[in-house]
Parts: sequence; C-alpha cells; structure tokens
Amino acid sequence: MQYFPAALERLTEQFARLPGIGTKTAQRLAFYVLGLPKQEAEAFAQAIVDAKEKVKTCPVCQNLTDRELCPICADQRRDKGLVCVVAEPRDVAALERAREYRGVYHVLHGVISPLGHVGPDDIRIRELLTRVGQGDIREVIMATNPDTEGEATSMYLSRLLRPLGVRVTRLAYGMPVGSQLEYADEVTLLRALEGRQEI
Amino acid sequence: MQYFPAALERLTEQFARLPGIGTKTAQRLAFYVLGLPKQEAEAFAQAIVDAKEKVKTCPVCQNLTDRELCPICADQRRDKGLVCVVAEPRDVAALERAREYRGVYHVLHGVISPLGHVGPDDIRIRELLTRVGQGDIREVIMATNPDTEGEATSMYLSRLLRPLGVRVTRLAYGMPVGSQLEYADEVTLLRALEGRQEI
Repeated sequence: MQYFPAALERLTEQFARLPGIGTKTAQRLAFYVLGLPKQEAEAFAQAIVDAKEKVKTCPVCQNLTDRELCPICADQRRDKGLVCVVAEPRDVAALERAREYRGVYHVLHGVISPLGHVGPDDIRIRELLTRVGQGDIREVIMATNPDTEGEATSMYLSRLLRPLGVRVTRLAYGMPVGSQLEYADEVTLLRALEGRQEI
Repeated sequence: MQYFPAALERLTEQFARLPGIGTKTAQRLAFYVLGLPKQEAEAFAQAIVDAKEKVKTCPVCQNLTDRELCPICADQRRDKGLVCVVAEPRDVAALERAREYRGVYHVLHGVISPLGHVGPDDIRIRELLTRVGQGDIREVIMATNPDTEGEATSMYLSRLLRPLGVRVTRLAYGMPVGSQLEYADEVTLLRALEGRQEI
C-alpha cells in the first residue's frame, strides 16, 4: 500500500535522485516544499526551469553564462593572450575571488578519469585546442586540482599544447598561506622546498 | 562581481532555503540539476508544482491526500470508532507498515511546543475535538512521540477528550523489539518494568 499521495511520492523521488540526498532526507525536503506558500513553491519550480533554459556555456571559454559571451570573455580589459585552464565553473569563481588574475579562462567541465569513464573526448579539450590553434594566445596556465586526476589531465593537455608553440605553466605548489608546518603533508612540504624562492 | 549566471544563483538560493542544505551543498545540487537533460529538469519542476497543487489534507483525519477523502478514511473495512492520534503524516506511514492497526487516524501536523512557538491553535486539535464531539468514536489512542513535547501534547489532549466520554489510551512504553538490555536507557527500563505483562 502507498502511504503518501502519489504527487508527494513523486516529489520525494525527484529529491532522492539528487547527489548526496537519501530517501529520508528526500522525504523531509518534499514535506518542506509542501509546507511552503504556493507562490514560493512555484518560484522554486520556476528557478529550475529558468536555470535549465537560460544557462549556456560561453562559446569561447566554456564557462556557464546566461549571455551571448560570458562577462569575463566580454571584458575588454582582460588579457585574451593568457588562458587559465580549470576543471569546473566553481574554480573560475575561486580564482576570481583572489582578484589578481587578469587573463581569461577555459573550463574543461571535468578531468580525465579512467575510473570514472571520463576520456579526453568527454571534456572540453577539443575546444581548447581549437582556441589555442587560432593563435593570439601566448600562455596557458594549468589550474586543475593538484590531485591525481587533475595532474594527469594537466600533463595530457600540456603535451598537446606545447607543439602549438604556446607557453604552458601550472599553478605553484607549496604551503597554503596561514597553514602550519607541523600539519603539512610530506608531499606538499617537498614541493614547497623544491619551489623555494629568493626573498 | 557575480561569478555565476543569475539564473544559476537563483536556483542555488532556492536549494539553500531547504532545511539542512547549506550554501555549498545547494551549489552542488544546482549544478547537478543544470547537468540533467532538459526533460528531467522540467519533470522535477513539475513535481514541485504538482505536489503543491494536488496534495490536500483529508477533511476527516487531516492526513495528506490527493483525493476527496484519504484512502484510510474511505476504506469501509476500517473501524471508524477507533482513532489513533499522531503528530505527522509520516507517523501514519510508520503505523501502517506494522499492518496491524485497523482503526483510523488523526494527524495533528505538529505538537505543542512553547519553545517553538507552537500553541494548541496551531495544530489540528480543534478538528479532533469536533470529530470526537460528533459521537461514534469510542476510543482515542495517543501515538505522539514519547518525548517531552509529544508527551505534553498527549496529556493536554487527553484532558480535553475525557470529558467528551471517550476512552483515551496511549501506546505502550517498553523495550524496542530486537534491542539489548545493556544499551537501554534507565527511563525506558523503568517504563518496561512498570508495564510488565503476564506471559
């Protein structure tokens, strides 16, 4: 027997499909939505439809945008000769928060992951090669995460990019600012030593 | 500066309003929805609108339903003279899963909670009194949670119901089946002792 109205069960199922949301939480969320004023529940539904309809990827950098060209690519003051390659749109947000970088980006929408069945053709690598192949780009900064898959993706890309006559660099490894030596892992310490600079 | 398209930010905000969902999780969920096929995202939105539109409370027992009368109240085989009072619709589901109870329910949609600013008028107590006042009900079983607020609500209700000439009972306290004595708390053990039965 079904204990809840069908429409409520369907909403619970929808929530349960979201990543990290189990059946119990999904039910709690469905009840919450049911308790919202009609207008607010409709605004929620509309937000889903809107996001899906309005958000596209920028044809140049592949970042998410709701305009013809993303605000960064459209900005005349950004240096179009310097491209920072990141895995996800949220990485662009992280770098922008540092308020230092004045170049543009390229968002891969993933990293190469043999275990996750993500190959080079599943992320926006072709678009990056086309972009670099058109000239005008002098440096590509690899800013994938410093983990196994991020590193592998970065190595793979640099091998494809170097023949195109572009300078390929990557973010520095080292101690996070504000961290403590005694809690740093050995690999980070090793990289920090290797990358030591004159002061 | 805004780092994500406005429509994406609005969807993130909607998710962040749900109970137990923080900003980071909300962003992850919004990205997930964005990655869904258009049709599936629209099905999600529709599920919200549908749940809100179709799900009402049963005029008799106040449980959630999408019909005129909920399936339990509409069932001719259920004993309408026996009413089990629960706090939430999910409690009805829990009791129904036991497949034993043949009476009907009354869903309060909350418990009296002075700290949570929930008074007797904020839950479906008036409806219960009206229902019992119409006669035909011989017993009301209190099945609110065995915690402070559930107990207080149950006591409050029994004081209102008894003058109406109805028998008022409550669920038995005792050891949960399958549990172990050594892990039982003292209050539960005390109640289990008090409620001991001949075998």
